[in-house]
Amino acid sequence: MIKKPFLVINPKNYFNQKELYEMASIADKLAEEYNVTLILTGPFTELYNLKKKTKNILIASQHVDSVPEGTGMGKVSPKALKEIGVDVIVMNHAENRLYFSDIIAVVKECNDLNIDTVVCCDSILEAKALALLDPTVILCEPTELIGTGQTSDLSYVKETNKLIRSISPNILVEQAAGVKNYEDVYKIIKAGSDGTGATSAFVNAEDREALLREMIEAMIDAVKED
Amino acid sequence: MIKKPFLVINPKNYFNQKELYEMASIADKLAEEYNVTLILTGPFTELYNLKKKTKNILIASQHVDSVPEGTGMGKVSPKALKEIGVDVIVMNHAENRLYFSDIIAVVKECNDLNIDTVVCCDSILEAKALALLDPTVILCEPTELIGTGQTSDLSYVKETNKLIRSISPNILVEQAAGVKNYEDVYKIIKAGSDGTGATSAFVNAEDREALLREMIEAMIDAVKED
Amino acid sequence: MIKKPFLVINPKNYFNQKELYEMASIADKLAEEYNVTLILTGPFTELYNLKKKTKNILIASQHVDSVPEGTGMGKVSPKALKEIGVDVIVMNHAENRLYFSDIIAVVKECNDLNIDTVVCCDSILEAKALALLDPTVILCEPTELIGTGQTSDLSYVKETNKLIRSISPNILVEQAAGVKNYEDVYKIIKAGSDGTGATSAFVNAEDREALLREMIEAMIDAVKED
Amino acid sequence: MIKKPFLVINPKNYFNQKELYEMASIADKLAEEYNVTLILTGPFTELYNLKKKTKNILIASQHVDSVPEGTGMGKVSPKALKEIGVDVIVMNHAENRLYFSDIIAVVKECNDLNIDTVVCCDSILEAKALALLDPTVILCEPTELIGTGQTSDLSYVKETNKLIRSISPNILVEQAAGVKNYEDVYKIIKAGSDGTGATSAFVNAEDREALLREMIEAMIDAVKED
Repeated sequence: MIKKPFLVINPKNYFNQKELYEMASIADKLAEEYNVTLILTGPFTELYNLKKKTKNILIASQHVDSVPEGTGMGKVSPKALKEIGVDVIVMNHAENRLYFSDIIAVVKECNDLNIDTVVCCDSILEAKALALLDPTVILCEPTELIGTGQTSDLSYVKETNKLIRSISPNILVEQAAGVKNYEDVYKIIKAGSDGTGATSAFVNAEDREALLREMIEAMIDAVKED
Repeated sequence: MIKKPFLVINPKNYFNQKELYEMASIADKLAEEYNVTLILTGPFTELYNLKKKTKNILIASQHVDSVPEGTGMGKVSPKALKEIGVDVIVMNHAENRLYFSDIIAVVKECNDLNIDTVVCCDSILEAKALALLDPTVILCEPTELIGTGQTSDLSYVKETNKLIRSISPNILVEQAAGVKNYEDVYKIIKAGSDGTGATSAFVNAEDREALLREMIEAMIDAVKED
Repeated sequence: MIKKPFLVINPKNYFNQKELYEMASIADKLAEEYNVTLILTGPFTELYNLKKKTKNILIASQHVDSVPEGTGMGKVSPKALKEIGVDVIVMNHAENRLYFSDIIAVVKECNDLNIDTVVCCDSILEAKALALLDPTVILCEPTELIGTGQTSDLSYVKETNKLIRSISPNILVEQAAGVKNYEDVYKIIKAGSDGTGATSAFVNAEDREALLREMIEAMIDAVKED
Repeated sequence: MIKKPFLVINPKNYFNQKELYEMASIADKLAEEYNVTLILTGPFTELYNLKKKTKNILIASQHVDSVPEGTGMGKVSPKALKEIGVDVIVMNHAENRLYFSDIIAVVKECNDLNIDTVVCCDSILEAKALALLDPTVILCEPTELIGTGQTSDLSYVKETNKLIRSISPNILVEQAAGVKNYEDVYKIIKAGSDGTGATSAFVNAEDREALLREMIEAMIDAVKED
């Protein structure tokens, strides 16, 4: 189960296999060292290996399909992900959206299978709708900010956190657009988010271990002072 | 490399993990026993394990995405499939179609990476267009017959085989709609196809090893007599 | 504005132009005769003409796109539909789904432009989510019943009506799966729905005017007795 | 029927209704004055009116769907476009792609209905495949140049023209990426294209009639000198 605060390392397809395994190894080491929740996403093809290679982090799928009755050539169901031990499923990312009725089906299936879910959305209204489905985490990324290196405006962050909590105090809230360093992580957690994460920052970092360490410390510092 | 004649076992999402590994084990044993080309498809999540568990068969992905520049959250590129040793990529299945410009990009990438490609289509005109891309195999499945248990009309089979060969003698031709027993396999190979395959027959078979054995023998008999 | 009770005639693409204009003429005559709300849907290409040819009914688009900033070659925006006088936009039909974030954008745009919206969904959870967007009508069609000629189970109908009203008393509720005659319409309205509608019944009717008359009378009778 | 040389005015969704009708009026006047083939595209909703308002130009749909057997809520079939008198259907634009099997079905239906087709593609290999379907026009727009204001490299233009002609001398070739003035039109026609067209140039022009006049003259000059 995802415990707050948490940090998501989301390399999308930017890492080759070697880089991905190195990242897994770094994250696994630091998760133990700092005793924090780290989530590493990978493409479907690497999830089995990422699970085998790590003990202290959660491994997340970057997508899932709603697969009716065994058909769905090439689709990947929650059940298939459960069978290889995946801990978390991220879904409805702006680059790979799902229809709402499929999100309903998939979140329900994940809840039954005891897989954590991180459902992405790009507006407060969508967050409100998703809260009805009882996912583990709602990830709010205003589409227009993704990949621009510009952190979500803090008032947006605070408003979203408050709103989702008012609907369902059990749903965790992640905010992650444009997070690239200690300061961004610190601010987002300080603004009441349960977790955060990054793609570009890790892809572009010269020293990925140093960056991850910095972000973990920001997360710990932000929580400690509360 | 896929050598003719070949047989594709395509369980789509119908098998659970245990059934899939059993099927892999059966296929691996019979491929060695009969010295024939068997191709087993699996969902993305199981391809790594299917490769590890087998020595004598080819492992095929059921789908692939055209992923631009590292983005494509949750998409699976030819490169990612290559990194886990996948031998063959099946694509453009009626349940998971690709745009033609993406098929162009993906087949080219596979040819560069030395991965065999099986591109599905549902008409002779589409087969003709696909032949321009130089895939390893063109799989002709008239959409209206898939899953009905009704084998492709043999005149259609012969015409398609002849036509694809006239465009490119190097492209292998698979015909597979509704194949369920010795007779279907025998007829399709006898009609000049390089390979065939099945989904439902394996899903519904009480004895999957017996069915596979029967189909392999049909394939061998059909070729032997030529 | 859609006033309850209302009846939707939804020929999808089954009518040719001549049949569509005849249906429009019949509906226009009966709407005046009975003084009831009738909504006729048509393909994009015929909406302008349907508006010109009628005075007493509402003309509805069968779909709409979320079109960003003028691009969207071949897409149809709410603004484009407003410009030709369309009264109602039906969207998110099972045969032409929209992503939730696009439904948010489109319903907001319609509300600003004063176009009525009918948003389809196939579960109570989805209805609850859609109610947050404040559309004019939520149309509940359990996917598995569409086109089977089997009317929605009345307990489902009642529960959905009650639930949507509890969230937002202003949103109208339409229930329409498998409606084919006086009895179906009567039961659905009697169960508390604000409106209903049909496709197959009109497509297959030998006498479309007689069928429409029968359905209108059922609607009136069901309401009268309340 | 489209006669060469031809010029396509493709406003996508950038024009409001008033601007679109003005453009139609300008084009209709200049088509008569210069006796050239002008094609104006419009959204589905305006095609009927564009036909009614013009006599000397061809009216084109910006998209079309492959609609199976009358279903397809909100989809627009070739037949529906024929019924309102549409002359030309543009399809497979980068912003609204179709699967190859749907292009096959739709082009065949258009050929049977005697509607001209303009099929877009973004590579020579795709152009070759499309040539097999016998559309009226193949429009080559290297995706990466669309909307950048950078004209297609002339060697690309010449190679594509030559290649499509070698496959089928009857298919017309349009090249249109980044065309904005007399010089661009002149060069493209001079390089052997049968037609060209523009979006942004017309959207941004202060004087649309002047721009169209300039482009028509470029087209005439380029052809005259041959």
